[in-house]
Amino acid sequence: MDFDTIAAISTPMGEGAIAIVRVSGPESIGIASKIFKGKPLHEVPSHTIHYGHIMEPDTKQVVEEVMVSVLKGPKTFTREDIVEINCHGGLVSVNKVLQLVLESGARLAEPGEFTKRAFLNGRIDLSQAEAVMDLIRAKTDRAMNVAIHQMEGRLSTLIKRLRQELLETLAHIEVNIDYPEYDDVEEMTHSVLIQKATKVQEEIKRLLVTSQQGKILREGLSTVIIGRPNVGKSSLLNSLVQENKAIVTDIPGTTRDVIEEYVNVRGVPLRLLDTAGIRETEDIVERIGVERSRKVLKEADLILLVLNYNDELSDEDEKLFQAVEGMDVIVIVNKTDLPSKINMNRVKELAKNHPLVTTSLLEDVGVDQLEEAIASLFFAGSIEAHDITYVSNSRHIALLTQANKAIGDSISGIQTGIPIDLVQIDLTRAWELLGEIIGDAVHESLIDQLFSQFCLGK
Amino acid sequence: MDFDTIAAISTPMGEGAIAIVRVSGPESIGIASKIFKGKPLHEVPSHTIHYGHIMEPDTKQVVEEVMVSVLKGPKTFTREDIVEINCHGGLVSVNKVLQLVLESGARLAEPGEFTKRAFLNGRIDLSQAEAVMDLIRAKTDRAMNVAIHQMEGRLSTLIKRLRQELLETLAHIEVNIDYPEYDDVEEMTHSVLIQKATKVQEEIKRLLVTSQQGKILREGLSTVIIGRPNVGKSSLLNSLVQENKAIVTDIPGTTRDVIEEYVNVRGVPLRLLDTAGIRETEDIVERIGVERSRKVLKEADLILLVLNYNDELSDEDEKLFQAVEGMDVIVIVNKTDLPSKINMNRVKELAKNHPLVTTSLLEDVGVDQLEEAIASLFFAGSIEAHDITYVSNSRHIALLTQANKAIGDSISGIQTGIPIDLVQIDLTRAWELLGEIIGDAVHESLIDQLFSQFCLGK
Repeated sequence: MDFDTIAAISTPMGEGAIAIVRVSGPESIGIASKIFKGKPLHEVPSHTIHYGHIMEPDTKQVVEEVMVSVLKGPKTFTREDIVEINCHGGLVSVNKVLQLVLESGARLAEPGEFTKRAFLNGRIDLSQAEAVMDLIRAKTDRAMNVAIHQMEGRLSTLIKRLRQELLETLAHIEVNIDYPEYDDVEEMTHSVLIQKATKVQEEIKRLLVTSQQGKILREGLSTVIIGRPNVGKSSLLNSLVQENKAIVTDIPGTTRDVIEEYVNVRGVPLRLLDTAGIRETEDIVERIGVERSRKVLKEADLILLVLNYNDELSDEDEKLFQAVEGMDVIVIVNKTDLPSKINMNRVKELAKNHPLVTTSLLEDVGVDQLEEAIASLFFAGSIEAHDITYVSNSRHIALLTQANKAIGDSISGIQTGIPIDLVQIDLTRAWELLGEIIGDAVHESLIDQLFSQFCLGK
Repeated sequence: MDFDTIAAISTPMGEGAIAIVRVSGPESIGIASKIFKGKPLHEVPSHTIHYGHIMEPDTKQVVEEVMVSVLKGPKTFTREDIVEINCHGGLVSVNKVLQLVLESGARLAEPGEFTKRAFLNGRIDLSQAEAVMDLIRAKTDRAMNVAIHQMEGRLSTLIKRLRQELLETLAHIEVNIDYPEYDDVEEMTHSVLIQKATKVQEEIKRLLVTSQQGKILREGLSTVIIGRPNVGKSSLLNSLVQENKAIVTDIPGTTRDVIEEYVNVRGVPLRLLDTAGIRETEDIVERIGVERSRKVLKEADLILLVLNYNDELSDEDEKLFQAVEGMDVIVIVNKTDLPSKINMNRVKELAKNHPLVTTSLLEDVGVDQLEEAIASLFFAGSIEAHDITYVSNSRHIALLTQANKAIGDSISGIQTGIPIDLVQIDLTRAWELLGEIIGDAVHESLIDQLFSQFCLGK
């Protein structure tokens, strides 16, 4: 494919020690040469670094002191010639260097365009490209591992194998359609078909089982802390934040006002919702009747319901249990450092099968057990991310779910004896759906849309 | 000097396409080798780039896909061996890589420690090191040029020459003290002394003349817009921001709440003070009596005083002129699209020697003249930054001011015939003060304090 030469600032905006202007495309070395005072970049070997200065081509005035990396395709991120200009990291100077690069013939890259080229040039497939962004946005080590594995092609390999098996199954069907006169073959084909399709379906189902966990690792576990005033909600929040490293993130594409708070609990990223509300006011019970609070509850993946060990159960407490009916809840009985006034038998009745943890946040007792409960509720204890191929991306999950259904349709079709060419359609559909995960024959507009979510310079 | 090996993240914190972990010191290649899966870094040539993976040394688990740059001293930023690990730019993954580097034997670098090593290892002098940080913080092209020139050693060269001249003058004095019997030499020495000292002093004075402009370029021009309600202060602000690229900067070391707004007016960075106040409310006249507003005015380098062309001058307007007595003021008569009601002769009286501009911000008339007035008030029209060696740093300005005084003392000493060894003391002092600018014989605690203001990873 023929591409133009693109350029962008590839380091985060802000004051830092190093900022990089990345240039990729057939003209990248020529463009850099126009504004670089140092060794002739055309003549240097690939994958080498050169000290020099960036200057205005007309006035020869020096604007930056830089290190320039020359990386010749195809052994590069995009498979094209890449020049990376390492500047001193100031906002003005890096923008000036970018401007000179653009004036010398490069086009400003769109968000994700470098990675898009890596995909379009065949260096990585679509799921690997998506993993690049997941890696950048990863909130915990586990999430990072999932992304790294996907980037390295673990999911791609699995998907490709499943597609290959579907293809072989489809070949069987072709035989059946092309040579219908062989009656004895047909019986055999039917049983082989069901066996093969079921095997693929089981692997897809197994992948879908990991998807809930994968999605949590990728996007964080939306967590809400509820409880009557003065039961220790703020203490719980502070305890989680202090014991674990808080990760405060800007949400891409929004203003700086919107800040979410993540805490990393044993590799599980908890996204604490409405925490500002908890910090500011203790009247969440009062607000539980409010529509907005109900909405927050609805969106939560995990509810931490806090009760007071030193107080009798109230109507409000019982109402809280009703409000979180059917959700993932961990019940926390706090203030065990004070005398018991709560009816623990009734608490156990209300908690039903939900995990129940007693804590004294004041004395730092029980927090370990709480964290263990959170981790095991979603990761059944000791599962390590690197043992499993996780599916974490909503797009992949949707495609797998549809593929699962298409294969299911084909199996019941075979069983009920519908015409074999209809079975063929279902299986072909499944094969196509799996193909969309790795970017085989996906629509251009989807590709554009996917890469537009990337950050600039990637 | 013997140093340990240091490491830090050298790109700004945030989600970006590339993040860099920089390692410098004698063990940097050895440390990187422990966690790098790829070519053996010990054997590769200097200034080359290598694709590979970072892995946990114990479990061999891959944590990142990276490009590693190997730069062997002394031709590096610090003159030491440097390894730069280019990661995919996620907060978690880059922190993980840094952690592995630290676990493998590096120490976390202090802010500015890489640049400090460049200074201690003699690659750059102190004024050049300070310029590195100025370059990163530069708000406009002009400020960037001042920093680049200082970084390239233009100021250092000038200072070194002045010191050399002082040293020669001191040698004359030595002759005079060592051979006091030669009466005929003494007379000659006195006149040579005065001539030489005066020449150096004049160059220092010339540098000090540039310092006001240099300081403005470096730190921005604190600007306050004042005027009665409804004269068009918000329009003026919006006009300045829209016509010129606004630069919103985080102040290093503070929370994200503190954001300053810069606009670049013809290369002059205007730092707009209390702009939030102007946007929110128009009652600045009311608040002018308040202590805080007076304080803001005191700290301002430039006052934009806005009057209403379509209204008579009021007592409040006159009070505003009193409040800004003795300051740098530009008087703006706005709303010339409406009928004239203001007494322009009185306005001219009040404005005295201050520039007076008429505008219709509504119709975008007069903004050019205003910008011209701002630029020429501080830069006398067309002076280009690259023609002059600017002094921009408060520390340098203070040292030059003291050196100027010391030389002045020596000159008047010679003229009034004080003992020549006292003259010698003054000139030696001036020589030392100039030396402090380039970091010759400065105290270690000063060096520590200077570099601690740098950003991490530089």
